[in-house]
Amino acid sequence: MQHVILEQALTYTGHELRSHWIYSKFQIQGDACVAFAGPCEVHLEEMVDLADVHAESPIYSEQMLSLIIEHFQADLRSMVLRQRLLTAQAKDLLNAAGASVRRQGDDLYDGENKLSVSIATVSPVSGLIHFGINIRSENTPVPTRGLADYGIAWQGFARDLVQGYVAEERSMQEALVKVRWVN
Amino acid sequence: MQHVILEQALTYTGHELRSHWIYSKFQIQGDACVAFAGPCEVHLEEMVDLADVHAESPIYSEQMLSLIIEHFQADLRSMVLRQRLLTAQAKDLLNAAGASVRRQGDDLYDGENKLSVSIATVSPVSGLIHFGINIRSENTPVPTRGLADYGIAWQGFARDLVQGYVAEERSMQEALVKVRWVN
Amino acid sequence: MQHVILEQALTYTGHELRSHWIYSKFQIQGDACVAFAGPCEVHLEEMVDLADVHAESPIYSEQMLSLIIEHFQADLRSMVLRQRLLTAQAKDLLNAAGASVRRQGDDLYDGENKLSVSIATVSPVSGLIHFGINIRSENTPVPTRGLADYGIAWQGFARDLVQGYVAEERSMQEALVKVRWVN
Amino acid sequence: MQHVILEQALTYTGHELRSHWIYSKFQIQGDACVAFAGPCEVHLEEMVDLADVHAESPIYSEQMLSLIIEHFQADLRSMVLRQRLLTAQAKDLLNAAGASVRRQGDDLYDGENKLSVSIATVSPVSGLIHFGINIRSENTPVPTRGLADYGIAWQGFARDLVQGYVAEERSMQEALVKVRWVN
Amino acid sequence: MQHVILEQALTYTGHELRSHWIYSKFQIQGDACVAFAGPCEVHLEEMVDLADVHAESPIYSEQMLSLIIEHFQADLRSMVLRQRLLTAQAKDLLNAAGASVRRQGDDLYDGENKLSVSIATVSPVSGLIHFGINIRSENTPVPTRGLADYGIAWQGFARDLVQGYVAEERSMQEALVKVRWVN
Amino acid sequence: MQHVILEQALTYTGHELRSHWIYSKFQIQGDACVAFAGPCEVHLEEMVDLADVHAESPIYSEQMLSLIIEHFQADLRSMVLRQRLLTAQAKDLLNAAGASVRRQGDDLYDGENKLSVSIATVSPVSGLIHFGINIRSENTPVPTRGLADYGIAWQGFARDLVQGYVAEERSMQEALVKVRWVN
Repeated sequence: MQHVILEQALTYTGHELRSHWIYSKFQIQGDACVAFAGPCEVHLEEMVDLADVHAESPIYSEQMLSLIIEHFQADLRSMVLRQRLLTAQAKDLLNAAGASVRRQGDDLYDGENKLSVSIATVSPVSGLIHFGINIRSENTPVPTRGLADYGIAWQGFARDLVQGYVAEERSMQEALVKVRWVN
Repeated sequence: MQHVILEQALTYTGHELRSHWIYSKFQIQGDACVAFAGPCEVHLEEMVDLADVHAESPIYSEQMLSLIIEHFQADLRSMVLRQRLLTAQAKDLLNAAGASVRRQGDDLYDGENKLSVSIATVSPVSGLIHFGINIRSENTPVPTRGLADYGIAWQGFARDLVQGYVAEERSMQEALVKVRWVN
Repeated sequence: MQHVILEQALTYTGHELRSHWIYSKFQIQGDACVAFAGPCEVHLEEMVDLADVHAESPIYSEQMLSLIIEHFQADLRSMVLRQRLLTAQAKDLLNAAGASVRRQGDDLYDGENKLSVSIATVSPVSGLIHFGINIRSENTPVPTRGLADYGIAWQGFARDLVQGYVAEERSMQEALVKVRWVN
Repeated sequence: MQHVILEQALTYTGHELRSHWIYSKFQIQGDACVAFAGPCEVHLEEMVDLADVHAESPIYSEQMLSLIIEHFQADLRSMVLRQRLLTAQAKDLLNAAGASVRRQGDDLYDGENKLSVSIATVSPVSGLIHFGINIRSENTPVPTRGLADYGIAWQGFARDLVQGYVAEERSMQEALVKVRWVN
Repeated sequence: MQHVILEQALTYTGHELRSHWIYSKFQIQGDACVAFAGPCEVHLEEMVDLADVHAESPIYSEQMLSLIIEHFQADLRSMVLRQRLLTAQAKDLLNAAGASVRRQGDDLYDGENKLSVSIATVSPVSGLIHFGINIRSENTPVPTRGLADYGIAWQGFARDLVQGYVAEERSMQEALVKVRWVN
Repeated sequence: MQHVILEQALTYTGHELRSHWIYSKFQIQGDACVAFAGPCEVHLEEMVDLADVHAESPIYSEQMLSLIIEHFQADLRSMVLRQRLLTAQAKDLLNAAGASVRRQGDDLYDGENKLSVSIATVSPVSGLIHFGINIRSENTPVPTRGLADYGIAWQGFARDLVQGYVAEERSMQEALVKVRWVN
């Protein structure tokens, strides 16, 4: 799968989580992962997590690192599994950089402070993930921490996370073709 | 899904990695996870990882903690993803107990020493995982470490790992039913 | 799967047959069955059965018992099969209460009189069934019979039908995990 | 789908429940249903229902009407659903002929007496059902009733059941292609 | 599958490539292939091929022979494969009529001149193909050739192509049910 | 997907058409196509086409070019479609080299003479194709033609056919990721 880390800022509004957004915007064809930094402001009508919609908890961050991932012809279960694995990788990167963060499902916490938002869903042609981790933690609707609070530059973190995800996919692809079936 | 941790020792020979082994042996119906400790000795003809078969590297451990996991009507990709997530959970448990272990795909290493063996495969009715982690590290064909080297009792480790896996499955099940699809 | 029988009246307009309607309205997560009584008035633009759309036969009932059923990640074939089984269960309940009703596909008839309307379809994340059975039979566009014509109270009928459906699902779940595959 | 009712007697041993048995024996290609009468004697090693294997309850009948059904590229869930629907159809035929039989999952009972055995399973290329209903009830391992006890000739019963199953499949096929999807 | 060749002219606008268009317009239920001749004018907002959307290359032909094909419950991969096979059949028909045309993926060329446009996609309930071949080649946005340039009448070509496609489907259906699985 | 053309002769016995044969023999991991020349002798018990088994028509050729193709996690329908497309490609290559051959399903004929044998099937982890085309046509059980009869060297033909198949797969992969879904 291809990947790209955008240098220019981009706001995440929720509208980006749809099939072929990556292709239409960046001309990257096929399974792909795009990372970018910018404000995050998702209104209720763009929210995909119906538990959040019900709780009327919109998502807001002054500066967030977002990953948009698309796998074509992928079912929801595989996307939820990939999302969990990605969250575990993000946690390991944070803790390797000195943080003390725990993963709870698809969320990252430092004590009571939330670091991330994430959703996995499907379109009729693909599976999609949005994974967002705060860069700055000011003015968020709930207590949060961000990469800046740990002195972590988002560019290097994004590069490590994206490359780790892509490498994991590649090695899983190999695992799919080297096992005999059992009775 | 149901789970059980066996108190009596059981040898893992590779033959256990087949559909309905859990049901036939323990009368546990449906998706399940069984953990047990005992010697591990898998001969080439029982091996499922064809890369190992080609390398003629049989698996041997004097005492290993084994998990056998079965999910019915599951495809190979979802099993490979679950296997990676389980391995990440095992790493976190080890490191929380003072070890300094890294995950590389579905393997756990401490420096050059290998701690685990694992395979994910399918039968015509289910997906299956074997995850084995050395308890003792003597007389293994490659340099290894085991739970005993870190002073970790296998019973508590097994309980934490199995419960963590089952809880992850349960929370993923919820994630499958609360997201709206996107365009 | 969870189930609920609403005490308050609710009009069925066809709009209710969509993914996550149950979750959004009743906070019931996952596979579920909801039963309610009320008028039924489905306009052509909300109709899912294109044969009815073509025949321009809108659906109308002064009072109907409706079941909305949602199974996540279910394909259309399994929903059509479930719909037939549900219709067979409804027939048995009616006849056990003294009626003399026959099933014809997914319809129930007493002589020339139609008792039920039903449709099975899919959204991109789930399979859905609407099964409606007249409570009262006045002023319907075709000759009908309703539960009241047989002296059957809808509440008890709804409870028996919903519980029967849920029990059937549970026992089928067991059937999925206890058979070995064949050559 | 094609169907045939054999005039000559055939013993059911369990070995018949495998992919392409119908094609190999009768040159009938594709989805098909074959009915025949004869002794039924299934030894433990041929049994597909692992609950029966565990209970060590072999299946025996001096004369049984058997249906073997094969649907290619069908998953286990659809086969279990079809099996239930077929059992409901058999019940209706019996009761229309004067019996008073109830369906419990995929079994038929008259009071405490069992009338039928049935299993749904899969091969790597197809889904398969065996549905057997006693013709005679003597010398069975558990108390049973058979078609002869109700004065029902197996030939007519077989014809009605097979034709009913085939008609149901045909009408469900139509239901798969006439519904629009919903949001 | 059913098929029909329309005698009256019909303009292809892209809007026709949607689920149940064939059923709604012609009352043909199930998998089907419809052929018709008429102008072709697809605006960017109706285009399904996002590469064309990006290149801003709308599709236009004064007179084109169009096939619309729908297979229910078909995935995108099978539709892309069917599209290639259909294109190969069209090429063979053209060359048998004296042309010298080559297939390049899902396109037909005569030297630098393009003869066809085609797309395979999915709706949430079906797979769909549009295959269009120019009848006349005047005033097209790129250099083209059409059936008229080879002296081929569209009616006979349509009949041969549609019948060839339907026959291929029928013979593939047989291939699906006569092979044993392998280890 | 990877591909290889063997220089040394290899007999095709039917035994080669099984999952991971390519990996076990050539250490090529993943979707792959292997071509080789040598005698072809498939006994009835190794035959996969049950129509041939029933007709008791074993396959024999003194020298045949064989392609073995494996796609992991592929269903039977996609393999049958790929097989047809491959056969169409082989026909075009033959005719471009001066032959006058027609495709009939998955068979190639020159008048009454058969040039090829082919089968598509599945294992529990993959889809598989064997496509064999005679090099020499002496002593075959039915009238045949072979590459040598047309003065075509098998090495160049194998290279063109294999490269054409691989290129087609690559371009179809692109088609899977660039179309928006339709309503």
